[in-house]
Amino acid sequence: MLAAHYAGNRTMTVGESEPSPPEPGQVQISVAYNGICGTDLHILSGHMDARVAASAIIGHEMSGTISALGEGVEGWAIGDPVTVMPLAWDGTCPACLAGNRHICQNLDFVGIDSPGALQGRWNVDAGLLVSLPASLSLQHAALVEPTAVAVHDVRRAELEPGQKAVVIGGGPIGVLIASVARSFGGEVVVIELDSKRRERIAELGFTVLDARDDTVAWVEEWTQGAGADVVFEVSGAAAAVLGAVDYAKVRGTLVVVAIHPEPRPVNLQRVFWRELRLLGARVYQREDFDTAVALLDSGEIPADALITKTVPLAEIQSAFDALTGGEAMKILIDVQAGQEI
Amino acid sequence: MLAAHYAGNRTMTVGESEPSPPEPGQVQISVAYNGICGTDLHILSGHMDARVAASAIIGHEMSGTISALGEGVEGWAIGDPVTVMPLAWDGTCPACLAGNRHICQNLDFVGIDSPGALQGRWNVDAGLLVSLPASLSLQHAALVEPTAVAVHDVRRAELEPGQKAVVIGGGPIGVLIASVARSFGGEVVVIELDSKRRERIAELGFTVLDARDDTVAWVEEWTQGAGADVVFEVSGAAAAVLGAVDYAKVRGTLVVVAIHPEPRPVNLQRVFWRELRLLGARVYQREDFDTAVALLDSGEIPADALITKTVPLAEIQSAFDALTGGEAMKILIDVQAGQEI
Ligand SMILES: [Zn+2]
Ligand SMILES: [Zn+2]
Repeated sequence: MLAAHYAGNRTMTVGESEPSPPEPGQVQISVAYNGICGTDLHILSGHMDARVAASAIIGHEMSGTISALGEGVEGWAIGDPVTVMPLAWDGTCPACLAGNRHICQNLDFVGIDSPGALQGRWNVDAGLLVSLPASLSLQHAALVEPTAVAVHDVRRAELEPGQKAVVIGGGPIGVLIASVARSFGGEVVVIELDSKRRERIAELGFTVLDARDDTVAWVEEWTQGAGADVVFEVSGAAAAVLGAVDYAKVRGTLVVVAIHPEPRPVNLQRVFWRELRLLGARVYQREDFDTAVALLDSGEIPADALITKTVPLAEIQSAFDALTGGEAMKILIDVQAGQEI
Repeated sequence: MLAAHYAGNRTMTVGESEPSPPEPGQVQISVAYNGICGTDLHILSGHMDARVAASAIIGHEMSGTISALGEGVEGWAIGDPVTVMPLAWDGTCPACLAGNRHICQNLDFVGIDSPGALQGRWNVDAGLLVSLPASLSLQHAALVEPTAVAVHDVRRAELEPGQKAVVIGGGPIGVLIASVARSFGGEVVVIELDSKRRERIAELGFTVLDARDDTVAWVEEWTQGAGADVVFEVSGAAAAVLGAVDYAKVRGTLVVVAIHPEPRPVNLQRVFWRELRLLGARVYQREDFDTAVALLDSGEIPADALITKTVPLAEIQSAFDALTGGEAMKILIDVQAGQEI
């Protein structure tokens, strides 16, 4: 089979290897599609070399069908369409014991901390499988994982129908959060710097503002002087963090979605003055995956608009390059293209 | 009557004036004691000159007895012991309409934005009155307002019995938060730089750590690797904000109590990684005042230990100087001393 490896030095290589049979309790998946996300780009950039060593097989936004069952696996059949919730927890740490297994203190993120889906045949523990309806295309199903991130963010914000949300940053996760928030009954405005992205987001029916404009005044007017119920910081920019609190109403919520590797200045005076709530949100829980599958299946997530293109596994480097250049929203890798297994 | 005025230039002056009768709906209070707080020091330093003009009468941590009733006031009698919840809201802004009147977008903080309690006779709207039990001394009752701040902070944190709380900063508010958290059933550790304060806090039965020690490792061990349920940032120091998240468990809560006039670097990576919750907490609600009265009346707040000394109104400048120098916890002004009215 063909598999893509992170080779260090900003390079992905594609090589041939022999698929291995699933271990007891595992299933083998014939991976159909795998989306490339910001974390994958981060790995490619070398910033995560301490966590992901060169020659690792990465990839965790995937869809596929079961190709083999390991010993003792029940409830699944060969040919079943599936995706994977790529979290393996220890079940014994304080976070797990308190019911927060998804952010286990010793979490193994499959596709980062252990081998991922960018290979023709992928063995995973059957417990990580998420069933897909036959009506959902495998291309769209490759968006289940990032959609689950967005569902988790919106659920964490406790956004209620009729509430107003500001999404700072109109990349793939920003658009997914906006879409989920809208499907949950929220009114959404997206703030984005890039004019091409703004055009695309507007085409999806969202109100979208240029980050250079007086967006605080706009939100103030939009909310009749109250401020937004929820603000999602998805841009990762320090300036966005500093300004994010200015959109929020008294007792409003700011969800920090983006990764901020450096400590960021936060306007704690405003947090205090308006009794704001700032929440971290990381990955997802099982119900987020279930909701994500349902939202994609119902067409409420603009999957086609998000998928800029699909490229064969052999051309994976071009996908990373296009994403690094900011030209694309989401690129899927067709993992079966060129496979002889 | 004698009244203390903020005269600008780091100076308080005490002068004679004629008491005025209460307006309709007001009561006149014979002010017994008034505590000096951090905000008062801030006013004296001139940092709040845009909000508090020179010759203003400040003071909002008070106790007293009703000395006259304005027209139409019912339910109160001359001689009733009272304190005041010094918040006047407009009742019409979005925050008020959403039920958050205590942080009204146009809040009038009585004693800052309008005349305060550092005068022999003080007229306030009857709606601001809080009844005091006869069993509570008027000296201790002067601590109701700062205790209500602490109650609000602990309630906002949703601290549950048996949970572990870290209080960063052992000044008056830190000690009050620690005391309230303990009375709510929490286990508390206080982190404080000053050795004299540490001694005093230890005498109150609290575990207290030197901020220079490896307090993160200590909390880690104290909580069996989980981290604290709640962290209160009361110090106001930038370094404390940066480190505060390291004490908190997965999904733990950080309450920002101190005023941070400048944006502070916050470790958002940790907020994200542990899905932390950072909450602003400002002033109090009516139920916080009721709880504060009950806690002081029951002796659960170490009022005597907190009150460093009581000085007559005429010596108010010395009280401000002692507090600015960090020598005292709480100083009460005896407002009736020397009054001829
Ligand atoms: Zn765990
Ligand atoms: Zn209001």
